[in-house]
Parts: sequence; C-alpha cells; structure tokens
Amino acid sequence: MMDVQSAMRAVLFDGDLRFVTDYPIPKPLPGWAQIRVEKAGICKTDMEIIKGYMGFKGILGHEFIGVVEHCGDTKWIGKRVVGEINAACGQCEWCANKMGRHCTNRATLGINNLNGCMADYCLLPISNLLEVPKTVTDDRAVLIEPLSAACEILEQLKMKGSERAVILGDGRLGILCAWVLSTVLHDVTLIGHHPEKLELSAWRHIKTAVSSAYVDTGADIVVDATGSDRGINEAMLLCRPRGIIVLKSTVALQGELNLAPIVINELTLLGSRCGQFVDGLRMLESYPYMPIESLITDRYPIEQAVEAFERAAQSDAVKVLLEVRKD
Amino acid sequence: MMDVQSAMRAVLFDGDLRFVTDYPIPKPLPGWAQIRVEKAGICKTDMEIIKGYMGFKGILGHEFIGVVEHCGDTKWIGKRVVGEINAACGQCEWCANKMGRHCTNRATLGINNLNGCMADYCLLPISNLLEVPKTVTDDRAVLIEPLSAACEILEQLKMKGSERAVILGDGRLGILCAWVLSTVLHDVTLIGHHPEKLELSAWRHIKTAVSSAYVDTGADIVVDATGSDRGINEAMLLCRPRGIIVLKSTVALQGELNLAPIVINELTLLGSRCGQFVDGLRMLESYPYMPIESLITDRYPIEQAVEAFERAAQSDAVKVLLEVRKD
Repeated sequence: MMDVQSAMRAVLFDGDLRFVTDYPIPKPLPGWAQIRVEKAGICKTDMEIIKGYMGFKGILGHEFIGVVEHCGDTKWIGKRVVGEINAACGQCEWCANKMGRHCTNRATLGINNLNGCMADYCLLPISNLLEVPKTVTDDRAVLIEPLSAACEILEQLKMKGSERAVILGDGRLGILCAWVLSTVLHDVTLIGHHPEKLELSAWRHIKTAVSSAYVDTGADIVVDATGSDRGINEAMLLCRPRGIIVLKSTVALQGELNLAPIVINELTLLGSRCGQFVDGLRMLESYPYMPIESLITDRYPIEQAVEAFERAAQSDAVKVLLEVRKD
Repeated sequence: MMDVQSAMRAVLFDGDLRFVTDYPIPKPLPGWAQIRVEKAGICKTDMEIIKGYMGFKGILGHEFIGVVEHCGDTKWIGKRVVGEINAACGQCEWCANKMGRHCTNRATLGINNLNGCMADYCLLPISNLLEVPKTVTDDRAVLIEPLSAACEILEQLKMKGSERAVILGDGRLGILCAWVLSTVLHDVTLIGHHPEKLELSAWRHIKTAVSSAYVDTGADIVVDATGSDRGINEAMLLCRPRGIIVLKSTVALQGELNLAPIVINELTLLGSRCGQFVDGLRMLESYPYMPIESLITDRYPIEQAVEAFERAAQSDAVKVLLEVRKD
C-alpha cells in the first residue's frame, strides 16, 4: 500500500473513467512547477478523450486554477496561477519562433503524454505559468483556456470593425467567441438550438437566433463552433463570397461534404485552436463585466467526477467544474 | 428548315453531347460583342457539365480565342480577343467593388445561363474582352483561362518568395499553378501520378515527384489541383502548422473527412477559382518561354467534338483543343 503522504486523488482514464485516491503525487523536474489544483473544468476535448480521441490514457483535465507548491524558482511558490497546456520542447523551429503551441514534440496537459489537472497536483513548465491578478476570481480564471481559444480569432484575423460575424453553436466556446468578437465588432449573431443557452449568452449587442434560417446570408465572418458535422455546411451557406469561415470544431465528417462552395466563392477556411493565455487574461482584466462565470452551470467535488462527466454530456450543461481543493 | 445564313455549327449539351450545324447565330445586345471563335479548349468543368454539374444545358465551352465580328462599339470589330467568362450584372455590391466574378446574378459562358464558345459564334459583354497582342499566338492565348486561374493564387496570397510550395495534381491546372508559382518562389514541387505529364511540366527550377511519400512535409503552401477527393487529405499531411492550402478542386467529397488537422495545425484552407485575364495576359507577355502551348496534347475539328470529349477524358490528355474556324 502506498504511503499516504505521496498519494493523491485523481480522475483517471485508462479505457474506463475512474476516480482514484492512490495516484502517486508527481514531483517537478528542473524547470517545472508542481501546482496544487483548486478547480478544474470539464471540456469538450475531455469528453472526446473518454471516447478514445487522441488515444490518451492518464489523468484527465487541462483547464485549472491552482497554486504553485513546489518549484525550483522559489519566487513562484504560493502564486495563484493558470497554465498554458502545451509543454513545448524548446528546441525546434516552432519553439524558436515562439510558437511552442505548434511544437511537433509537444506534450499537452491531460491530452497527450502529460498527466492532466483533474487531481490534487499537476506539473507544468514554469514558462507556461501566468500569475492571476487578485481582481480575477477563481471562477473566472478557470475558464481562461476556452476564453483564450476564443481570443485566438482576434490574433489570426485582422478586422476592421465593420464586419458582420455569425457564430454557429451555443456551447461555451461558441458563446465565448460571440463575447470576444463583440468587443471588436458591432454586428455579431450567435446561432444555437438551445434557447436557455442563447439567453445565457446575452451581453452587449449580441443578437441570437435558434436557426440559421432566421439569419441573413452574406456574413463576412462565420465561426463554426458547433462541434458537429453540420457546422461546416451551414457556415458555407451563410458566408459571403471571399468571406472567412473560422473552424473551431475538430470533428471527423461522415458522409458527403461538397467543398465546391469554398472554391466557387473563394472562401477562406481558417483552422483555429488554442489561444495564448496572456490574451485571455488581458480580456478578463479589460472586461470585468463579461459574464464568464455565468457559464458555470454545475459544480461537483472531484470525488464525483464520474457523475460530473455524465452531467457534462447533457445538452443543457455549459461548463461543469470540479472542485478539487478540500478546504 | 433554317436559313443557312443564320445557322452555325455548335457543340450542344442538352442531356446528350451533340455536334449540330443548325444552331441560330446569336446577335449581340447593346453593350455586347459577337465573337467569331477561332479555337476553343475543353476544360475539366466541361467534362463535369456533361455529367450534370451545374445543370447547364446549351452550347458548351468557355475557353476561346476569337475575333470580334459585330459590336456596337466599332473600334472592337476585327480585334483578336479573349474574354472573361463571367457576365456580371453591373448593378450589385460585388460589381460596384470590381468583383463581378462573384456577382450573385452573374451568367457564365458555357457554364450558367449563357451559351458557350464551342460554336462559330459566341456573345460576351464588351467589358469582358481583352485584346490579344500580336506577340501572343492563338495556341497560347486560348489557354488564358486556366493560366489566369493559376495566377489567381498570386492575387490571393501575399508571398515573400522564400516559401516552399507543393502542388498536388499534374493536370493542366496543376502544371500551370507550378509554372506560375515558380515565377515568384524558388522552391516549387509538383506531385502527380503521370510521369509523362511531370516531364511536360519541366520549366525553370520546378521539382517533380510521383508520390507525396517522396516529398518533405512541412510545406508552407500546398495547392490541391488534383480534382479528386484524395487531394485535401494529402494536402493536410504535407502542410506545415499555420500553413496555407489553396483549394482548386471543386469536388464533392465522399466518405469520411477528418478536418481536425485544419484546427489543430491552424491551417488556412483558401478556395481559389477563376482569375483575372489581365493577369494571365501579363504572364503570357512577361514569360514568352513559359511552355504553355506544350499543354495542347490533341486537336480536333469542331465537327469531331464528341470524339474530342472522349479523348479529353483519358488520363494522358492534358489540353484538347477544338479547331473551330474553317479556313
């Protein structure tokens, strides 16, 4: 039996999803920090992983807020932090160009070759950490990963401000994309099938619709955050010639897909993935009234992780949090 | 029986592909020109149309060189011309922005709502015409449409010159894309399955390969000109993170397509269609040694159009021409 001092609670996926109490506490390597996790979020990617996506086995989770407990660089100890999820090699061309997010040797927290944050402790490189200002609450900070993913659109697209944008999908990423785009664009419409989620998305001047049938075609920018294979076809219908479709859904499409509209209308289909947390953090500080925490529809203690995952699979759940810290 | 003076030869598609000799000669409306066709090219799009694509019925053909015979603006009469294939409405927002190619009310020569050029005569708006300089031969000028489509990539993409480009597909559009890209890039590789076509593509510093297995991944720009559904998957494999895939193939994909690499690697998928003939003409004048005419593998008199279409469907045919003018 393992020494209690060196064991921790964790949400493990090894073919089955399980909550365990005897996982060895990880020790940080040089350049890495050991973080005591306060809260962790369940993300769509986690739901995919437990269906076999990425072939990942280990501790799940990549959305967290925590406190640095052990670290070679002692000035980090005790700091409230969030952390970029990709641990880059630091050696390759991508890393040299400050694009460690695309490092081909990268490990990714709770997704690829690196245990995740749904546990008492997790490890990340010190260079991945960002200190969270006191003005940003835990409930807001824990959502920095999807918020930064939404901010990535602003990094990738140069916008004038007069563009009309349509976002497909009223899940939390779709809502966050709508909020983020509404900070730079006047005309933003969110389309989703869940009236209660559309209500949740109310902020600033965002318009909503329960079907693309109610929305004018000819949009300059269409964001597909449906996470489903209908998204790309709807996006092609809504987008104006020479417009831009931002693809946020990592789905495998089944059946027929006619890409001819992309060629005929000279559309740009832009893949968009994670963002930089520094952008998400700046957004959190700049827009203290962006109702980020309203996305948290459910909270479970980590011991009830299996129930929490079941809840997260229901269509009316937006963000399900695991409360990790005991006290 | 029709008056011989007002009848012409034409290649007609009305469910069946037919050569006819009794088609009424069209008369130009104000603002339009009547062009006597010298030569016409058979294009991949024509091959699709006779399979039912676009639901077009009428005279086929959109690649031609001809001479203006009737025209309200008499200074055009007798001029050797090529012509942009989209007849725009001139009234809509797209037309106002000089993007008549995307006019939503447009008719397209031999493709949509406008009889094509595989006939003794065709009609086009005067504003679509470009005079062909004497230095450019008929055999080169008749290929201006696909050449301009290749030039469209230069209009859409700002390149530094140091990018590595890979072109998938050794049909005439793939070869033309390789030639055009080689005028601005040092590192251009054409991948195709037909050794004889790859040989044909030899110009400047272009490298060739019979399979993408022999080509380094991590290309900055990948052009899919395969016209087949394997192209997009190969392109995703070859393209570097944040690289650009130029989609030239208007195919409907069957079966599974996993777009996750586009999101994960933040690829840009850029649809690219027709180009502006003024760019193609400039390319013809600037690069008199670009071996455009070598793409013409076969010539048929218009009377043998049905045979010519059969020949064009064979994999070793690159460009099949119809010789229209009798003398």
